[in-house]
Amino acid sequence: MSAAPAIAAVDWGTSHLRIWLLDAKGAVLAEKRSDEGLMALQRSEFPVVLDRHLRSMGVADTLPAIVCGMAGSRQGWIEAPYLTAPAALTDVLDRAVIATGSVREVRIVPGIAQRLPEAPDVIRGEETQLAGLGDLIGKGRHLVCMPGTHCKWVEVEDGTIARFGTWMTGELFSVLSTQSILRHAVAAVDAGVTLDNRYFRDWLIQALSAPADMTAQLFQIRASALLFEMSPKDASAALSGLLVGTEIASAAAKFGRGRSEIILVASGRLQSLYAEGLKAAGHTPKSVDADRAVCAGLFEAARRHWPLQHGVPA
Amino acid sequence: MSAAPAIAAVDWGTSHLRIWLLDAKGAVLAEKRSDEGLMALQRSEFPVVLDRHLRSMGVADTLPAIVCGMAGSRQGWIEAPYLTAPAALTDVLDRAVIATGSVREVRIVPGIAQRLPEAPDVIRGEETQLAGLGDLIGKGRHLVCMPGTHCKWVEVEDGTIARFGTWMTGELFSVLSTQSILRHAVAAVDAGVTLDNRYFRDWLIQALSAPADMTAQLFQIRASALLFEMSPKDASAALSGLLVGTEIASAAAKFGRGRSEIILVASGRLQSLYAEGLKAAGHTPKSVDADRAVCAGLFEAARRHWPLQHGVPA
Repeated sequence: MSAAPAIAAVDWGTSHLRIWLLDAKGAVLAEKRSDEGLMALQRSEFPVVLDRHLRSMGVADTLPAIVCGMAGSRQGWIEAPYLTAPAALTDVLDRAVIATGSVREVRIVPGIAQRLPEAPDVIRGEETQLAGLGDLIGKGRHLVCMPGTHCKWVEVEDGTIARFGTWMTGELFSVLSTQSILRHAVAAVDAGVTLDNRYFRDWLIQALSAPADMTAQLFQIRASALLFEMSPKDASAALSGLLVGTEIASAAAKFGRGRSEIILVASGRLQSLYAEGLKAAGHTPKSVDADRAVCAGLFEAARRHWPLQHGVPA
Repeated sequence: MSAAPAIAAVDWGTSHLRIWLLDAKGAVLAEKRSDEGLMALQRSEFPVVLDRHLRSMGVADTLPAIVCGMAGSRQGWIEAPYLTAPAALTDVLDRAVIATGSVREVRIVPGIAQRLPEAPDVIRGEETQLAGLGDLIGKGRHLVCMPGTHCKWVEVEDGTIARFGTWMTGELFSVLSTQSILRHAVAAVDAGVTLDNRYFRDWLIQALSAPADMTAQLFQIRASALLFEMSPKDASAALSGLLVGTEIASAAAKFGRGRSEIILVASGRLQSLYAEGLKAAGHTPKSVDADRAVCAGLFEAARRHWPLQHGVPA
């Protein structure tokens, strides 16, 4: 039966858990999302939560599960120790560690550490998305931009993660718009910044040309609300444009020299905002959906650990 | 009696209230601090709180009070509307508005607004410190650096505030070290960063040379804790150095071109950290104590509104 799942693919992050059931060719049969992320769980709860969700999806206890993300961190289900960069993506997938406590076989993909004193950094979850890009990054040198709470820019060379950096853009947006004096000026985070707000582009362009001035520009958002009655929605778009522009200017200067094409792994609004930002900075973004990428990476990892075949629904 | 107060000088900010009793020559006779700042008070409480403190200091109800800071904002005691920059410091002092409700005469010094669409900004409190610098900035062009929650850099020309900018350095330090993922790496804010911690200087130097990379450097503090076991105290010093260095690089590029001397108005640890930062950036800081400056500015304002004479203790 082609509709029977062959693997449960799990992206288990800090604040969210997402489960996909994939068939033997990697196609998505079903999906489930929950906010039972790392922060909401005790160590012993990970296998319980996973098995409960999979049973509610009608899945047999024999179906294996492949996991990526913060569930593999020291505070997670079990630590899947970092591989050190440079690291081949196939090695990363092969090193998925066994997690015990579930009724089923479970493996967790490790993260990657860049152990350079001048540029220490870590990745956990994005390595699986990168592995899911397949032929797109199999040969040659590529630059990949992966927006999110902690945005990753990764240089991949012949299927190996060569070096990377992290820009705290998403977290800055969230913390500044809710915890700083900007909360008086900026609309609630979930208001949602969109491209049709011209303030996004105006502040983006400004930041691209003067990324070193970000902490001064921040206060100008507050002052614009005080002196020029900038609306909360416009202020939110300005803050987003300022932070995204600052990130792209900094990251492109570090990694993007002489490179026009940048692979953008993102979904939804983030995808459109970053595509606009990359274009404004003179790059050519090539977009890949982030969910598709992580599913493909998890499937590839599973394929390397289990002889995937169509299971039997419970 | 030379020990009798001639004026109550009040710096009333967002989170703190400070009262000094000054004699007829501006010398400090007594001081009181409280955390009854703007955020802790309803509008009607301002006169009550002021009169209570002054009575507890043994002051007659006839002693006038001069106030600067957020007490003059729209959310404060009474709004002392912004003057528009460029603004002469003497005009600012002369425009102190009458605040009612107290048993005594009270005036509040207004803030200054920079109503430029390309650089909107506001100041409230620092204008009084600037007025307190007296002859130091009376003639010629001067650049003044005023660290704090919202750091102000002000260009003063022949006693007139010509232009200024605000860097949110202090608030970023506070918000990031308590509300972001960096809270896992960084020691509590009140641990206190000092110059003898080499991480302050190392991260400062790095930021001075690459201020556009601040949001990426932030995450490297987290990664240094994970990969190289950077201690919370060192991480706190690194965060401080990173933010101060980013500010100085950005502000000096905007205001400091071809200028070596910069007047630094600060107290305590902030004074030493910024002096180090300015020197590392090739400038010559000339330090003025921030408390002395605000007292002198408030005294000068009072002198312009009342015939100051020695009062009689209650």
